[in-house]
Amino acid sequence: MDKKIHVGLIGLGKRGVGLLSILVKMEDVIVTAVSDAYEDRRLNAVDKIVSFTGSKPYYSDNYKDILNRKDIDAVIVSTSWADHINIVIDSMKAGKYVAFEVGGAYSEDECWQLVKAYEETGIPCMMLENCCYGRNELMVSNMVRKGVFGEIVHCRGGYHHDLREEVAFGRENRHYRLINYMHRNCENYPTHELGPIAKILNINRGNRMLALTSMASKARGLNEYILKNKGRQYDLADYSFAQGDVETTTIRCAHGETIVLTLDTTLPRAYSRGLVIQGTKAMYMEDNNSLFIDGVHNDYEFSWNKQWNNMEKYREQYEHPLWRNYKPDSSDSHGGMDFLVLSAFFDSVRRQVQTAIDVYDAASWMSIAAFSEQSISMGGMPVPVPDFTNGKWLNRKPSPGGIYCLDQVYEK
Amino acid sequence: MDKKIHVGLIGLGKRGVGLLSILVKMEDVIVTAVSDAYEDRRLNAVDKIVSFTGSKPYYSDNYKDILNRKDIDAVIVSTSWADHINIVIDSMKAGKYVAFEVGGAYSEDECWQLVKAYEETGIPCMMLENCCYGRNELMVSNMVRKGVFGEIVHCRGGYHHDLREEVAFGRENRHYRLINYMHRNCENYPTHELGPIAKILNINRGNRMLALTSMASKARGLNEYILKNKGRQYDLADYSFAQGDVETTTIRCAHGETIVLTLDTTLPRAYSRGLVIQGTKAMYMEDNNSLFIDGVHNDYEFSWNKQWNNMEKYREQYEHPLWRNYKPDSSDSHGGMDFLVLSAFFDSVRRQVQTAIDVYDAASWMSIAAFSEQSISMGGMPVPVPDFTNGKWLNRKPSPGGIYCLDQVYEK
Repeated sequence: MDKKIHVGLIGLGKRGVGLLSILVKMEDVIVTAVSDAYEDRRLNAVDKIVSFTGSKPYYSDNYKDILNRKDIDAVIVSTSWADHINIVIDSMKAGKYVAFEVGGAYSEDECWQLVKAYEETGIPCMMLENCCYGRNELMVSNMVRKGVFGEIVHCRGGYHHDLREEVAFGRENRHYRLINYMHRNCENYPTHELGPIAKILNINRGNRMLALTSMASKARGLNEYILKNKGRQYDLADYSFAQGDVETTTIRCAHGETIVLTLDTTLPRAYSRGLVIQGTKAMYMEDNNSLFIDGVHNDYEFSWNKQWNNMEKYREQYEHPLWRNYKPDSSDSHGGMDFLVLSAFFDSVRRQVQTAIDVYDAASWMSIAAFSEQSISMGGMPVPVPDFTNGKWLNRKPSPGGIYCLDQVYEK
Repeated sequence: MDKKIHVGLIGLGKRGVGLLSILVKMEDVIVTAVSDAYEDRRLNAVDKIVSFTGSKPYYSDNYKDILNRKDIDAVIVSTSWADHINIVIDSMKAGKYVAFEVGGAYSEDECWQLVKAYEETGIPCMMLENCCYGRNELMVSNMVRKGVFGEIVHCRGGYHHDLREEVAFGRENRHYRLINYMHRNCENYPTHELGPIAKILNINRGNRMLALTSMASKARGLNEYILKNKGRQYDLADYSFAQGDVETTTIRCAHGETIVLTLDTTLPRAYSRGLVIQGTKAMYMEDNNSLFIDGVHNDYEFSWNKQWNNMEKYREQYEHPLWRNYKPDSSDSHGGMDFLVLSAFFDSVRRQVQTAIDVYDAASWMSIAAFSEQSISMGGMPVPVPDFTNGKWLNRKPSPGGIYCLDQVYEK
């Protein structure tokens, strides 16, 4: 494939427009069709494409019109969470490579549907889990592969992001998060933290998630925020939100590792993905930007003299190859990882190979939302996580996926 | 009571000697009797007291000899975990105010025994949870009482302490931790982090812990440590330790708060108690020494520009009264909090009032060890935490305990 990849973009909300801003600047990609249910969003996207490329894309309010077009090589789905899986399945059935934005699943069943659609069609899909391409996530992952951490024992991550404005005023800004927070109580957005951890732990490739427990705190953040900003007359001021402010999920893996995930989006706080990686030889902690290496650092000295914030000392030695060769400019969205995750997808499309974050990754990561909901609803009961590979995880090897591959072996 | 308080010290291991170093310097206290099962430890303690005070204390290998002495006003217990509760109960039955070192319980029953011994005798006891008197813990607690955090929703804490040397070589250094790590898998040491959190959440005073779930990672840290330091011939090199390296416990409280506790003592890492307090108006994080206050700090700016490590900016305004009036010198053990917790106990003894960390606090905090063991053994099943006050928590008010009181109202 030496021509440009022709892309259809489905879902033109805030995130779709963000992706579009990157896509129009990618040299080997052209967005030739867009779709959204809202007319203003469609027209806005069309204008944006015209202003960059000079040519007008096809557009429709029905995403199936995009899938039916012969000139489309690949589809990107950035709709609301509830529409991801259906559209991805339809894309695979239409024979289109498809990438889709992150989110949690609503049921175990839709994860199985996703897996079966792939297995029936053989068309690869890819979850656009940009945080798998985060600079620090990849550097730590690189260090793990090089043995710096020894055997990995425990990982922690979170989606710590103050989304009060987006959620509370979802009626004004047409954001689907609101309706989720009104009615559901779960780890609704697990993949930003779970994705990089799952790659480090070789989930679905010689390891898998066995079971989880979840507990949620009370929900107070949104009410206080609404009262402060809109007053008591606002119709949601006294609404009893289902979603707890802080939700904690603990997952046990086949090789005895534990993973703690936190959803924390409706209280005041600084942004963090809260990544912690603990092995028998080293530890990484995102929240103070530190690497603690056995035999190099000293227990009390490190913490009491605040010797953390030392990541840069190791940057030159352990930077991931992807980031050595890539210098995003300051305008690149999400610090450059959006560009990398899209590049990984297009690399697979061009070479017609499996994607770096495949259907089994997507199904197992997304399923955590549904299982956490079950556990919370039963007072923290453990809930099993099924083997979405049906046994293939025992023999699946790190894929020879080139530099974008997120498994054990990185090509230079 | 205007004379010196006569103290009997039971348990003269590393921790007992540490406490003794403080006690011999306290002006209003005299250690007149000591006890330990090991002769070398008894003689060492006697020598220490003689060198400080000039007078020789009574000593015995049987702690009951100490309890029987009429000249003893108060007893301090710093034995191994397994002996705390029995000795405390015997002390109360002997009519002695008794303080005891921290640790986890082995069963729910022994917690009830402790409560019943207090209720039958009316003699107060106090857990010496020094971290309740930690400078940052008290400052944050003070801010919570002043409303800076709004309504508290979620708390996190941990005992993150690399104890590999102490545990792995417990046979050489006679440390009881080893035998615990060989046979038990639980949150074996919950109170350093749970104590300050329980005080902040008013546990046993209008709130209580309802249930918990626990999961443990695999155990790899000690084996790797032993292999590295002693080689494969060491008899524990291949021992399959029961205690997982990282243990995570999630607790739900009556008012919907969640608490996440982590035991993390057999992997390389920097010391931390990992305290996180999240309310509707502010957040504290120990690991990067930060306060994030709604309306003052800005989400991305704070984390991406590393504006954390800002606690000192708030020190003058929010320092706890106890720490305003106390400047420990650098030789004070554990940064001065040992002195404060002992002072709190002697304040209660002198005034013959209830202690700041009473029997219900002790029973409920220590019980988490036993319940976490049950939950882990059942694959993460939720386990209820009983109401050790038998309903008194509904009406128990912050006690008028003076400046050492850790409840809602601080006397100036």
